[in-house]
Amino acid sequence: MSEIIEPRVLKGFRDYLPQDETARRALMEVLEKVFRSFGFVPIDTPALEYAEVLLGKGGGETDKQVYRFQDKGGRDVALRFDLTVPFARFMAEHVDELYLPFRRYHMAKVWRGENTQRGRYREFMQCDFDIVGTDSASADTDIILLIADAMAALDIGGFTVRVNHRGIFNRFLEGSGLREKSAAVLRLVDKLEKIGPGEVKRLLSAEIGEGVASKVLEFVTKEADFESTLAKIEAYAGGPADDTLRLREIWRNASEAGFPGKLELDPSITRGLDYYTGVVFETSLDAMPEIGSVCSGGRYDELASLYTTKRLPGVGSSIGLDRLLAALDALDKIKRRSGYTQVLVLAIEDGLSPSYHRIARALRAGGIAAEVFPEKRKLAQQFAYAEKKGISLAVILGADEASSGTAQLRNLATRQSVIVNLPSGDASLLVARAGELLAPPLP
Amino acid sequence: MSEIIEPRVLKGFRDYLPQDETARRALMEVLEKVFRSFGFVPIDTPALEYAEVLLGKGGGETDKQVYRFQDKGGRDVALRFDLTVPFARFMAEHVDELYLPFRRYHMAKVWRGENTQRGRYREFMQCDFDIVGTDSASADTDIILLIADAMAALDIGGFTVRVNHRGIFNRFLEGSGLREKSAAVLRLVDKLEKIGPGEVKRLLSAEIGEGVASKVLEFVTKEADFESTLAKIEAYAGGPADDTLRLREIWRNASEAGFPGKLELDPSITRGLDYYTGVVFETSLDAMPEIGSVCSGGRYDELASLYTTKRLPGVGSSIGLDRLLAALDALDKIKRRSGYTQVLVLAIEDGLSPSYHRIARALRAGGIAAEVFPEKRKLAQQFAYAEKKGISLAVILGADEASSGTAQLRNLATRQSVIVNLPSGDASLLVARAGELLAPPLP
Repeated sequence: MSEIIEPRVLKGFRDYLPQDETARRALMEVLEKVFRSFGFVPIDTPALEYAEVLLGKGGGETDKQVYRFQDKGGRDVALRFDLTVPFARFMAEHVDELYLPFRRYHMAKVWRGENTQRGRYREFMQCDFDIVGTDSASADTDIILLIADAMAALDIGGFTVRVNHRGIFNRFLEGSGLREKSAAVLRLVDKLEKIGPGEVKRLLSAEIGEGVASKVLEFVTKEADFESTLAKIEAYAGGPADDTLRLREIWRNASEAGFPGKLELDPSITRGLDYYTGVVFETSLDAMPEIGSVCSGGRYDELASLYTTKRLPGVGSSIGLDRLLAALDALDKIKRRSGYTQVLVLAIEDGLSPSYHRIARALRAGGIAAEVFPEKRKLAQQFAYAEKKGISLAVILGADEASSGTAQLRNLATRQSVIVNLPSGDASLLVARAGELLAPPLP
Repeated sequence: MSEIIEPRVLKGFRDYLPQDETARRALMEVLEKVFRSFGFVPIDTPALEYAEVLLGKGGGETDKQVYRFQDKGGRDVALRFDLTVPFARFMAEHVDELYLPFRRYHMAKVWRGENTQRGRYREFMQCDFDIVGTDSASADTDIILLIADAMAALDIGGFTVRVNHRGIFNRFLEGSGLREKSAAVLRLVDKLEKIGPGEVKRLLSAEIGEGVASKVLEFVTKEADFESTLAKIEAYAGGPADDTLRLREIWRNASEAGFPGKLELDPSITRGLDYYTGVVFETSLDAMPEIGSVCSGGRYDELASLYTTKRLPGVGSSIGLDRLLAALDALDKIKRRSGYTQVLVLAIEDGLSPSYHRIARALRAGGIAAEVFPEKRKLAQQFAYAEKKGISLAVILGADEASSGTAQLRNLATRQSVIVNLPSGDASLLVARAGELLAPPLP
């Protein structure tokens, strides 16, 4: 016998056991249903691409975290580190085979060699959705409505989508003579939630002087409602323009559609990335504000300028699946299950195995998930298996039942059994009875 | 403006556009439903693992095709090239956290640097399912029944699952004095379908002499039915033993359960791999036998002996998703769709955008996938978009309709419209009518 290799995964990587994988899938299935109901379609792209395509010709901060290597053909390749860059490449390559405006969603793994000491994983699932090929308030609204309907579908309690517009902030900074300092100002404003207004003001004052710092803090402070906040920042930014009109349209669309949550205008939101040029937004859960945004995004002018001269404006968002899953878990809103089986057919007599399989197949044909315990073992062991797998009912068919043409259906929680007839081995009465026992009680 | 990077994917890799991705997902969703109905649970493992874990300490033929590199921490890592090896590692690592017998399925991407000239892809989806921790005929039966129910659920027409048992073949070879030659004999028998019995006999004769070659060919030839083939090979192998008893049990279990296809005993099936030690099986489609097996597998004694001294016998199978998808496509059994949207709300007047979003949201709440065309464009363009996306109905709400408190619902195939009332903007009549129009006609 050769030496045993230690079974282990790389640091920052993890296995998904059934309890985790079923929960993750339950979340993804809800989201996918919402995406499809809004007309979004799925696409997929390769995990591995030319490094040049993913990283551009320059190379920058991102590069350090990327899994990059030479393949056996000597090509410089890399694992995708997000879904945005491959989507940009995808749109540039396939725009003539598609139709615009194009609404896509993509849920897939990405890889980053992050520092795992910060609790980060090196392999994780991203979930992106975008509408590309239009620069309209209607598309902005759709993304925000989709986020809200997804949160509602997840039954996660109250939530707030906070929006802002980069253009208004830029106009305000310019009007206040802060154009040169805008990077520093945005960086500090971004810390508002984390370090509080007092500290932000102190740091801002050191950067741009106390008077202007006060003005910045007034600008980024929310008023009582969306419309009064909008009126204030419009005034600070020098009056109405396309950007304020855009926010007004989004507000009107979303509120008339019946936005199922709170929609706030929060002038402090900037979403650091240079990439965004229009509306930006974040989503927080009322029950767990401390975990930060579970769904963020914004509008961009040029999705794919690295790969095409064709202008592809769009609006999109990304759901933090891991963060959202952790929240659903903490709020006890997601079912961790070790299996989907509803009925376990026990193995009592080897000679009755054909009957067990016939019964299980009849149950499945009746829409009930059923499995046969695959070998004769002590009943206590088979019940323990059923319990670990969260199975509700057991079919007991031993020599006695076989000779009387019956089977027992046992409720594994109450341990109560009912006897059902199997006339000439026909399982239809058993299937009907199992269906009744599995049906949720009437309210 | 910087230089444009050519948007392209690596050779052997591909993008999935909506038509392809929706078809692939439709297939995977059917399979997943069947897996769950049989009590199988999903797991996931990392795409990237220690090379030593995936490839063992030796290294062999497989290595050449593996994407293997050093990560930034200097670890020797590799992309998984199948789902079997990671599953073995997973079971060895987590067996104490799970329950046995463990039934899992795993649908995920794997990577192999195959020669693309043979039409092979370097990134593809695998689909594996196994029952581990039992050495019973009942588990063997379940895997074969699952394959059959999956084929039936895909509505792919007639199919044949052909089974055999490695043990019977081995007994026969031994009894015929062919133990030393067994590798060569198995290799040639494996070519039976490809090159025909005459050519196999010629090659076999050269290897082991004409007399024994005839005997081998008689052994591997199917008789009229399962039971008479079994009786024949049992006699050739030296009489009844565990292996023939096993095939008898599987046959009895499967036929009594109501196997929804043809189950044949085919003594020529060997499934080259040393890995299998018991039953082996393949699945062919009656309408397309030429594409070969769409689902193959078998029983093994030791899943995880590389990683643990714990004995983990099991039985499992792998579905060739790409091959199956190609077959479903050729048989016109899968829907390639460019979207899921059922109703498109046209953008006619910018000022009515809030109403469009309200109507779309009401449709979605009624279970109808609906999207708002995001900007005002010529109607012809909006209709063309609807056609490309395969959308059935359009909602037309312009200034005239708005002033009369109505909207038009247009069937985009027949181009017929019905007028529906929107009393005070309430879309419930419209939703009900859209539901009627979308419902499939009564048979």
